[in-house]
Amino acid sequence: MRISLIGAGRVAHHLAKALMSQHEIINIYSRSFDKAADLAQVAHAKAVSHFKQLNVDVDLVMIAVSDQSIPNVISALTEYLPNVLIVHTSGSTALSVLSTKHARAGVFYPLQTFSLEREIDWSNTPLFVEATENTDLQRLHTLAESLSQRVYSYSSAQRLSLHLAAVFACNFSNYCYDMAKQVVDAEQVDFSLLYPLILETAQKVTQNDPKQMQTGPAMRQDQNILQMHQQMLAQVQRENLAEVYALMSQQISQRHS
Amino acid sequence: MRISLIGAGRVAHHLAKALMSQHEIINIYSRSFDKAADLAQVAHAKAVSHFKQLNVDVDLVMIAVSDQSIPNVISALTEYLPNVLIVHTSGSTALSVLSTKHARAGVFYPLQTFSLEREIDWSNTPLFVEATENTDLQRLHTLAESLSQRVYSYSSAQRLSLHLAAVFACNFSNYCYDMAKQVVDAEQVDFSLLYPLILETAQKVTQNDPKQMQTGPAMRQDQNILQMHQQMLAQVQRENLAEVYALMSQQISQRHS
Repeated sequence: MRISLIGAGRVAHHLAKALMSQHEIINIYSRSFDKAADLAQVAHAKAVSHFKQLNVDVDLVMIAVSDQSIPNVISALTEYLPNVLIVHTSGSTALSVLSTKHARAGVFYPLQTFSLEREIDWSNTPLFVEATENTDLQRLHTLAESLSQRVYSYSSAQRLSLHLAAVFACNFSNYCYDMAKQVVDAEQVDFSLLYPLILETAQKVTQNDPKQMQTGPAMRQDQNILQMHQQMLAQVQRENLAEVYALMSQQISQRHS
Repeated sequence: MRISLIGAGRVAHHLAKALMSQHEIINIYSRSFDKAADLAQVAHAKAVSHFKQLNVDVDLVMIAVSDQSIPNVISALTEYLPNVLIVHTSGSTALSVLSTKHARAGVFYPLQTFSLEREIDWSNTPLFVEATENTDLQRLHTLAESLSQRVYSYSSAQRLSLHLAAVFACNFSNYCYDMAKQVVDAEQVDFSLLYPLILETAQKVTQNDPKQMQTGPAMRQDQNILQMHQQMLAQVQRENLAEVYALMSQQISQRHS
């Protein structure tokens, strides 16, 4: 397929690298032309500085920009590429945001967290596709299957629910790691000592219900430890951490009482 | 070494299985004799129903019971085994809790989360040892090195800080997974779709600072998505989850503003 990308951030970067081996990346547009040019060089594509410069002879335009920018991008795209299939890659934006402005609309959502520092295992990354037209849905399915073994046609409601779950499973667990690092940093203890624990905690919920895997003082209702931890956090004046500690411990205790 | 175990829960279970290949497990005591007998059978040891039945001819007694029970266990042990090295395996109990009652006191703390459902990779599990007497510290070091490549002599203060960090990195991240499962369960969406995301999120903080790895709507200050998520949680009447969502999002926004 001949594909153009709107955006040159983390998601666009990983999509371009994954797609270019089996497909042709035609254009890359970004508000920052420098970023578009950098990614275009990697993807053997042509960077453009305005939507009107986009090649109309493409099978698909993928939007990989912040959710807030999607509506404006669509308005501009549909003006210059009225007949091209346009998809967004957002977990939390309904198909209707696109389809109310553009007839051939779709979604191509990879359920993964993207960092420039790390390669993505695309073959195991679940991809969720959605489209207004059935033939386009088939096209997106085929495209997704060229990247991943796990391709699903999900409704916008299901996808939104998955994305909300992903905020808990990814963004909030990462913030827990961040808080853990703040705790050990305060005592000049090496954060890397926690790596085996972090990996085992993640791995075990891929085989068992996380509720059954819960451990720790809150689950055991161990009031002595809970109080001692609150005192330790108060001593190092970590009010944010104390607040999270209190709320999470209270909820874990309730859930397991 | 000739080792007896007090406790027959998850930690005792994993310790017994790890130690028995290179050492001899002599006795296992638990408040529940049935549990002690079950574990004794696995570990080729003798279960006992009272502290006075413990064999005095051992090199080491390891206490693997709940933190709350440690003081009572020590009082009983020191009466019958006054000259034996006794260690606890708790991250959050100071050495002094043991050493004020028993001369040859120590700590043998594995920084890991233990479930009966999963095997532990002991060679990569950090072990923290501490003892009142230097010769005993050496003994514990040697014992720990028979299990793991990562053995450290840490003070009680450092160990307590590590254990507090572990609550954030393990117990709270697991609760995040649990909440994520509640979100997808409500929409009959399969939790296993989140496995690649959960694993990648954990793996990437073993190579990069978690603060740098933060992603999501709160970090991007995306008010539309944050509001939509709060509405979704309100609709399915997940008040607990909404409370965590609000606090974590507010803190992540602050940390990245």
